[in-house]
Amino acid sequence: MLPFSRVTIIGLGLIGSSVARAVKANMPNIRITGYDADAMVRERARPMGFCDDITDNAATAVIDAELVILCVPVGAMAMVAGQIAHDLPAEAIISDVGSCKQSVLQALSSALPHHVIIPAHPVAGTEKSGPEAGFATLFKGRWCILTPPENAPKSAIEQLSTFWRNVGAEVDIMDAKHHDMVLAVTSHLPHLIAYTIVGTANDLEEVTQSEVIKYSAGGFRDFTRIAASDPVMWRDVFLSNKEAVLEMLQRFSEDLTALQRAIRYDKGDELESMFSRTRNIRQSIVEQGQDDAAPDFGRKH
Amino acid sequence: MLPFSRVTIIGLGLIGSSVARAVKANMPNIRITGYDADAMVRERARPMGFCDDITDNAATAVIDAELVILCVPVGAMAMVAGQIAHDLPAEAIISDVGSCKQSVLQALSSALPHHVIIPAHPVAGTEKSGPEAGFATLFKGRWCILTPPENAPKSAIEQLSTFWRNVGAEVDIMDAKHHDMVLAVTSHLPHLIAYTIVGTANDLEEVTQSEVIKYSAGGFRDFTRIAASDPVMWRDVFLSNKEAVLEMLQRFSEDLTALQRAIRYDKGDELESMFSRTRNIRQSIVEQGQDDAAPDFGRKH
Repeated sequence: MLPFSRVTIIGLGLIGSSVARAVKANMPNIRITGYDADAMVRERARPMGFCDDITDNAATAVIDAELVILCVPVGAMAMVAGQIAHDLPAEAIISDVGSCKQSVLQALSSALPHHVIIPAHPVAGTEKSGPEAGFATLFKGRWCILTPPENAPKSAIEQLSTFWRNVGAEVDIMDAKHHDMVLAVTSHLPHLIAYTIVGTANDLEEVTQSEVIKYSAGGFRDFTRIAASDPVMWRDVFLSNKEAVLEMLQRFSEDLTALQRAIRYDKGDELESMFSRTRNIRQSIVEQGQDDAAPDFGRKH
Repeated sequence: MLPFSRVTIIGLGLIGSSVARAVKANMPNIRITGYDADAMVRERARPMGFCDDITDNAATAVIDAELVILCVPVGAMAMVAGQIAHDLPAEAIISDVGSCKQSVLQALSSALPHHVIIPAHPVAGTEKSGPEAGFATLFKGRWCILTPPENAPKSAIEQLSTFWRNVGAEVDIMDAKHHDMVLAVTSHLPHLIAYTIVGTANDLEEVTQSEVIKYSAGGFRDFTRIAASDPVMWRDVFLSNKEAVLEMLQRFSEDLTALQRAIRYDKGDELESMFSRTRNIRQSIVEQGQDDAAPDFGRKH
């Protein structure tokens, strides 16, 4: 049994196009309609074939949809919801893939007060952007978090859970506020720090950019990957999840200051003990299938 | 022509055992003698066959060496140099693979004032430790930086350069002080930050460790890899390159504070422009062969 027979995807970048491809691969009988605000993206996406139809405006795309998934930066959710409000069937479920859930729930609830809204966040991605970057197995073995409001019908939550499980994800359900705090530490803070250190390296006068690039295998290159992520998407994430991000950033800064002090005052034992307790967490991540077991992320050598 | 015919490797962990394996693969006629201070490591390393001989003390290992490479934590260099000083042939070249070069040069010069000392740093590694973790192609396409003192004979620099080129590395020569500043940003600061954020996540009370692990694919998992590196090695790096690390850390903290401020005061344009300038550096790293071109480090999906 298919959870839906007609799905609309608004936003055909990395995530939107991956959802479409994953549906085609796993539930080929679902009819997928797509839309992207960028005419060039629509043009490039059409021959790729992951949508049965790509419309030239958002409203047309949702006319007979049973599920609409907004795959746009979180700051654009309110605008898109406004564009589709008039044409959205009364019984359609609205969902999204945004990285913050409180702000999205608020934006969608305001624009679509009479619809069933179930925000979702598949914790998956790469540093690439655009419809060319998507692939059908992106969500395989990754977690998709649903943050339904209290009044969401159980049947709708179940349908959307089935949808995500069918494209390979595992599904968790949690409160939007808790989601935003968890993701602030597992995703938002890491991106903020990666953007910062790459910027810091970029600005140095004593070390050339050529040197930074040549010797990046010492660790720096690991940070450049997530610092190559989409700037608009991440701008919106930080503005939308400000409170939790600032809280995590404050804790990180305190911990960094403690390490700085240990270095300054030659406290070798403190450093060694701090560095010793961070190995286990990597091991658990690998054991639970959330990263490659191969050394160095399985990079070719 | 082989640059050396008898090479001794002190320290048979990830790097030492990789050097030995790379020599066996590329210059099989070099005779390799090994030693490790840990009897268990010697025991495990013997059947692996990457050394022709593994001795039970450091002095015996260097008796007829033409090149001795110290592959021990930088804080242990002085001690090891003291152990081999009496038996080291007068014409042998002493080198190492440590991540800081000023402190190593000073330690080796004090212990071995009459020998040719050419510190070296192959910028390569994985998060794994021990003789089991090494492999012959670790240095392929990576840079090895030599930091010879001013009085080092050109012929010795040339021999050591040939040695590293033969195991697949590209060779650069620079001043030890400049090396320490460059690596502070491309390697030491990234490790310090990775250790910090993994520790911060570990200490949270509102977010469980299980949640951190499950949702780590949002970015956090990238940091856990280098935070799983050898704690003793890294303790020594931070204590030995204190000045440059503290300087880079200060700049990083200032930049992080600027981003924090931009988030707090909703300065979306500033955030977007900061996030936009970090993409190019990744592209250059990939173009210059210092990282995989495949998205997500080429992780399997």
